[in-house]
Amino acid sequence: MWNLPPADSVLHVLSWLALAAQAMTAALAAGRRSMDWMGVCLLGAITALGGGTLRDVLLGHYPLAWVERPSYLLLTLLAPFVTIAMARVVHRLTTAFLVLDAIGLVVFTMSGCNIAWQMNVPFGIVIVAGMITGCAGGVLRDILCNDVPLLFRAELYASVSLLTGLIYATGLSLGLGSGVLTALTFVFGLSFRLLAIRYKWNMPRFVFTGEERG
Amino acid sequence: MWNLPPADSVLHVLSWLALAAQAMTAALAAGRRSMDWMGVCLLGAITALGGGTLRDVLLGHYPLAWVERPSYLLLTLLAPFVTIAMARVVHRLTTAFLVLDAIGLVVFTMSGCNIAWQMNVPFGIVIVAGMITGCAGGVLRDILCNDVPLLFRAELYASVSLLTGLIYATGLSLGLGSGVLTALTFVFGLSFRLLAIRYKWNMPRFVFTGEERG
Amino acid sequence: MWNLPPADSVLHVLSWLALAAQAMTAALAAGRRSMDWMGVCLLGAITALGGGTLRDVLLGHYPLAWVERPSYLLLTLLAPFVTIAMARVVHRLTTAFLVLDAIGLVVFTMSGCNIAWQMNVPFGIVIVAGMITGCAGGVLRDILCNDVPLLFRAELYASVSLLTGLIYATGLSLGLGSGVLTALTFVFGLSFRLLAIRYKWNMPRFVFTGEERG
Repeated sequence: MWNLPPADSVLHVLSWLALAAQAMTAALAAGRRSMDWMGVCLLGAITALGGGTLRDVLLGHYPLAWVERPSYLLLTLLAPFVTIAMARVVHRLTTAFLVLDAIGLVVFTMSGCNIAWQMNVPFGIVIVAGMITGCAGGVLRDILCNDVPLLFRAELYASVSLLTGLIYATGLSLGLGSGVLTALTFVFGLSFRLLAIRYKWNMPRFVFTGEERG
Repeated sequence: MWNLPPADSVLHVLSWLALAAQAMTAALAAGRRSMDWMGVCLLGAITALGGGTLRDVLLGHYPLAWVERPSYLLLTLLAPFVTIAMARVVHRLTTAFLVLDAIGLVVFTMSGCNIAWQMNVPFGIVIVAGMITGCAGGVLRDILCNDVPLLFRAELYASVSLLTGLIYATGLSLGLGSGVLTALTFVFGLSFRLLAIRYKWNMPRFVFTGEERG
Repeated sequence: MWNLPPADSVLHVLSWLALAAQAMTAALAAGRRSMDWMGVCLLGAITALGGGTLRDVLLGHYPLAWVERPSYLLLTLLAPFVTIAMARVVHRLTTAFLVLDAIGLVVFTMSGCNIAWQMNVPFGIVIVAGMITGCAGGVLRDILCNDVPLLFRAELYASVSLLTGLIYATGLSLGLGSGVLTALTFVFGLSFRLLAIRYKWNMPRFVFTGEERG
């Protein structure tokens, strides 16, 4: 007999990978702005933990995960040093970083939906909780780097999170076996994100040229 | 006999209008930065709901309004499409948008005061809660658009919120009939804001030219 | 017999000084961007109270200090006017402002550790709570001024907070007499910060020149 491991442990292991991945990719953004090592660590931790933190604060879900388990925080503070150590070969690893980032997006979205689901919030809020967990860390990173968040400008990033969350939350509400649901949603979300990057899928833009006030 | 409708329902209806108004004006800011449709929706929702959300988080007032009633969230996500649909005629509607925005400012300020009042916080904090509800959404919008918030630079915006809140909170503490109070404060706040725009009222500025550190 | 005053009252008095100091230095940043008086006051209050507020929100420590005691808020709203009044002589007071800012950093760090300690969070989180209290206000100020936060780019600021918190939290966990502990940590932190400025101590930077995405 062959069994899928319990979905919770899979999601747990994937979460560690996703935290490290988001902290490592944030370190690249820090390096582009020549931040010092402290700044690189802080930006890594804020990016990786920011989405889940914002979700928990908005839902009133205390204590926060990293307050209860400081090992999460330690991981995100140290992962950026892997990026620093690899700086010279990073340009050859672009694809690896894109995949890591996509894994972070999908895993965070699912774990955000999971937590909201356990709090019995309305269905739409389960999906929003997933999107906040998946996307808000990158928005914080871009704000701290003084950019208009990439999320608002380009690529299917929030949309991937939205669809991933929609499928996952629908599955939860149908009472699907959680191991299969987690695996299928993960594969769907990751494929969608990577295809969107590969084929440069985009949403229509709203371009308005009226004068600025103020 | 003629009666004013109950103040709470008036404030409730006005709140819907204000939410839509703030989301629609935020969409203009999104369009000036050529955001995609997802970005436009997200910026609309964050702008319209951001002030009330920040107030509730700071006061520990859970669950948040839009978590309990996702219809608020849906409204602010969809309202920006009205702006997108009207993009070609928006430049002829500048005044309408200014009035809508002013309604949002005044209504949000009153509803923020109302909620803080029911939580029995000190008088000054009632006013601050009104200001946060009225103004913080626009600050978030400007941060996400990578601008120095308009609030800090120009026009009587926070000041309108401050005075509106002061009058409304004073009325509440004097036990004034809430229907009359709501109506009078609304008229005062809206007139003050529109006069401030019309006659370009400004506060003195603090200009300091010392060198920057760092 | 000569006694140190109780540590809590010392920390309390120092907190008032630190709040005023941070609000006054934030006013300089506001003046460099020609904000109006309302903006100067708001930026002062957000900078001075932002770190403690973020710590309390993240730890779920309600009610916030300034909600319970609006006098804190009033102080930070009014302190910027001291800076406005002194604008012409501020350039001669650069050192005084640096010392004030350093006092703010060290005192906020200690008081943040203190509050987290009383909430029985893990040791590492006590230190993080100190850092958030000491540093986050300045990060908010820089975001609102549309800068990449100084904290991430230059100088030993977060590092001073980290070491100060480490010493203070270690002392707390060893059960050291709190008066002596407060005094020693204060002297250490302040000296470290001022020496770091004086001798331009810096951390290594991470410079990465790979292309930007998006």
